[in-house]
Amino acid sequence: MKLYDCKPAPNPRRVRMFLAEKGIDVPTEQVDLRNGQQFTPEFRAVNPQCVVPFLVLDDGTGIGESEAICRYFEEVHPEPALFGKDAKDKATVTMWQRRMSFDGFDAVGETFRNTTPAFKTRALSGPNFYDQIPELAERGMKRVKNFYRMLDDRLGASRFIAGDRFSIADITAFVAVDFSGWLKLAIPDELSNAKRWYGEVAARPSAKA
Amino acid sequence: MKLYDCKPAPNPRRVRMFLAEKGIDVPTEQVDLRNGQQFTPEFRAVNPQCVVPFLVLDDGTGIGESEAICRYFEEVHPEPALFGKDAKDKATVTMWQRRMSFDGFDAVGETFRNTTPAFKTRALSGPNFYDQIPELAERGMKRVKNFYRMLDDRLGASRFIAGDRFSIADITAFVAVDFSGWLKLAIPDELSNAKRWYGEVAARPSAKA
Repeated sequence: MKLYDCKPAPNPRRVRMFLAEKGIDVPTEQVDLRNGQQFTPEFRAVNPQCVVPFLVLDDGTGIGESEAICRYFEEVHPEPALFGKDAKDKATVTMWQRRMSFDGFDAVGETFRNTTPAFKTRALSGPNFYDQIPELAERGMKRVKNFYRMLDDRLGASRFIAGDRFSIADITAFVAVDFSGWLKLAIPDELSNAKRWYGEVAARPSAKA
Repeated sequence: MKLYDCKPAPNPRRVRMFLAEKGIDVPTEQVDLRNGQQFTPEFRAVNPQCVVPFLVLDDGTGIGESEAICRYFEEVHPEPALFGKDAKDKATVTMWQRRMSFDGFDAVGETFRNTTPAFKTRALSGPNFYDQIPELAERGMKRVKNFYRMLDDRLGASRFIAGDRFSIADITAFVAVDFSGWLKLAIPDELSNAKRWYGEVAARPSAKA
């Protein structure tokens, strides 16, 4: 088994944090995204989508997409459960995971990829190239602000995002918040519930993964 | 239990098709999205996200997001498995589900919501309003074309999207293709693998749900 990783990038960090919470050690190989290693013929042969994280199982099966990789490890290593325990809990975690992903992580990514000069022709990750759209960067910033408000509301009612237990939704949101730091879009100080939660998650050993 | 639904909209159709494949009957209530019923105080009290589908369980728990609702029913009604059977299979289905959702469904939605006059100030669904961005509509069309090519490649190697068995990834992709019909962006005739698969899925009774 091998996990293709890139230490500085936010998406693979989600998987590393998930593995750290589970106490699972997986051999990794670094892919140098900054220098375009994901577009080399060698890496395309591993993952034609040209992205990491990417997991290759012992039988050669490739699993892409952060959440899919995490779900694989949830199945083979169920404890601690990070996708919920019973039907209601699993659905609740999936709901929040989707919101943290779409309203949080993707919104930060939208701003980041539509402003950073290195992504001028690669405003979406993957094998197809798309030009940056400046209005989309602006929209992304509005979305991130709305995301923080939503996060704060939720965390006023609940210790963690999907309820009493830490879950993958917390990982996605936490990495999104750190990712937004690249854009100097930190959580505003007045959002005390979100700040309380951020401090709590940042103190977990997995936050260093 | 009650499923808030809207017959003409593509997202709730994904859930109805999923339920039809499982043979599950759930009481539904129609929400008139065209006339803004999702923004009424009554519906906001049900789902502050102002979207459907939305499932309310007997104990009052609300589950939003199409995939989360489907995962709930997968847990309480495991057969036929539509999210995969073992760890590898579940991860593979999740990977394809994410791709069909992001590269397919969301790409069609991006074009639709950024061109349709009724969505002038609501280019993203949910409680927050965002203006349309014409360049985003154009980008969406490019993305849909790339999506069809990816679909065709995959379906040249596999009967269904995630492998030999029909899964939620097929539902997401199929509804995305029908949704793209609203924009006259049908699958090009030369993509024979994608056309073969589309015909096969369209013939399933669940396609009428």
